[in-house]
Amino acid sequence: MKLATVRLGETTAAGVVEGDYVEVLRARDVREVLAGGLEGVASLSTGQRVPIGDADFAPVVLNPSATWCVGLNYAGHAEETGVPLPDYPTVFSKMSAALIGANDDIVMPPEDVSVQLDWEAELVVVVGRSCRFADVDAAEAAIAGYTVGNDVSVRDWQLRTTQWLLGKTLEASSPVGPWLVTKDEFGNIEGKGITCDVDGETVQASQLGDLHFKPAELVSTISQMITLQPGDLIFTGTPSGVALSREGQPWLNNGAVVRTHIDGLGDLVNKCVRL
Amino acid sequence: MKLATVRLGETTAAGVVEGDYVEVLRARDVREVLAGGLEGVASLSTGQRVPIGDADFAPVVLNPSATWCVGLNYAGHAEETGVPLPDYPTVFSKMSAALIGANDDIVMPPEDVSVQLDWEAELVVVVGRSCRFADVDAAEAAIAGYTVGNDVSVRDWQLRTTQWLLGKTLEASSPVGPWLVTKDEFGNIEGKGITCDVDGETVQASQLGDLHFKPAELVSTISQMITLQPGDLIFTGTPSGVALSREGQPWLNNGAVVRTHIDGLGDLVNKCVRL
Repeated sequence: MKLATVRLGETTAAGVVEGDYVEVLRARDVREVLAGGLEGVASLSTGQRVPIGDADFAPVVLNPSATWCVGLNYAGHAEETGVPLPDYPTVFSKMSAALIGANDDIVMPPEDVSVQLDWEAELVVVVGRSCRFADVDAAEAAIAGYTVGNDVSVRDWQLRTTQWLLGKTLEASSPVGPWLVTKDEFGNIEGKGITCDVDGETVQASQLGDLHFKPAELVSTISQMITLQPGDLIFTGTPSGVALSREGQPWLNNGAVVRTHIDGLGDLVNKCVRL
Repeated sequence: MKLATVRLGETTAAGVVEGDYVEVLRARDVREVLAGGLEGVASLSTGQRVPIGDADFAPVVLNPSATWCVGLNYAGHAEETGVPLPDYPTVFSKMSAALIGANDDIVMPPEDVSVQLDWEAELVVVVGRSCRFADVDAAEAAIAGYTVGNDVSVRDWQLRTTQWLLGKTLEASSPVGPWLVTKDEFGNIEGKGITCDVDGETVQASQLGDLHFKPAELVSTISQMITLQPGDLIFTGTPSGVALSREGQPWLNNGAVVRTHIDGLGDLVNKCVRL
């Protein structure tokens, strides 16, 4: 099953993506659907359909109880940033106001605040059930499925102190969507490609199988400290190819179009627009 | 004015603290009062009064849009942890589920997860008005007032990777309260003492005037990246004296009572209880 959150005038609704349509549900977003249990989706049907081409996608979850992010989770990216793969997942976060929909603009701050915006294509885990002190099997069972994210980063703000948060939570910067694909439909993560294109040039290309800490390990680890809730998001880390580590550091420019793709999940297409 | 959030059976309400009573307001928590504007508080009165001794204090704000935390913001604490004072505020975060009320138990994880729980008495800024790209004056105007917090930390989880978040967001660990004291009532932060006692022994004692980055500087900095919202909390950092830097690292034990005090704000008294 594919579940999206779409904007309908002043409100939002969850929807099931079926063929070329989004079938609108009686729920405010995908979090509400997950909290009620996926087995109840049919009973939420409104009968309303929106053609996918007309759908205005919001972030898959509007306001997760937590959005977790993981750093240094592909060997290639750890290498390009000059640090070894860590022994434990490196976990930070992103505020809800940083999240945008699959086709929304990436809102860049004025140049005097920062010009160092960078891309980070990522697999995003969507939690389906609450869990605490979960072993890897229980953690796996708590995962509803996956979506696509881009952990857009403001590098000077990320790296000017030891803690990355401010450079990872720029308002209206980080697309997540277009929809949640449930695990049964998605299958294994191994062998599926993840890419990021900027203005048509492929800047990141890897395989989800190269993830160092796997989704269930991430859920299990976080759950030792705090209960994960339905709708929580985990950005699982990015492969190599970010601007930070490229010759000349080609930061995102005003007007640049970023396409983030994962096989079997879909595409984010976001234009950078400077305030 | 002093504003608290109290539990009333299955629900919560904001209240004004007047003498020995909490005057209950028609609002779910202090965030809702702040969002409506402090000038409207009188119109929210319900007439109901709860004696302070009977009040069950919830976190001052139940679910802030963001809880920010600042590290290394007193020279003494930076020195004891062996790092220089940073050039910019070191900002990380804490999830809402980590917050507890002024007299709630600090819930410790099982010993096989961690025994390294540590105290961090902190001044907490409560944001009163939304602001973005605020200079220091605008940032100062956006601050509603202050409350007391303890940024209880799980040191092994905090320090086993570069990012501190997991060790800073243990569920039901971090008291914040008992009430917001508005700036007009609190006055200047200079000259006011902040202390932490564990089982009656004073382990931290400093002055708020020793804060390196002042409250308005913190608000201004964060607002460059994201809009601060009414009810957002900023834990401003802790003075020296944490268990991490003491001889023998005397972590909090099951049953320990932590008292966190700031002159003019009040006290948190929380007992450590292991799951």
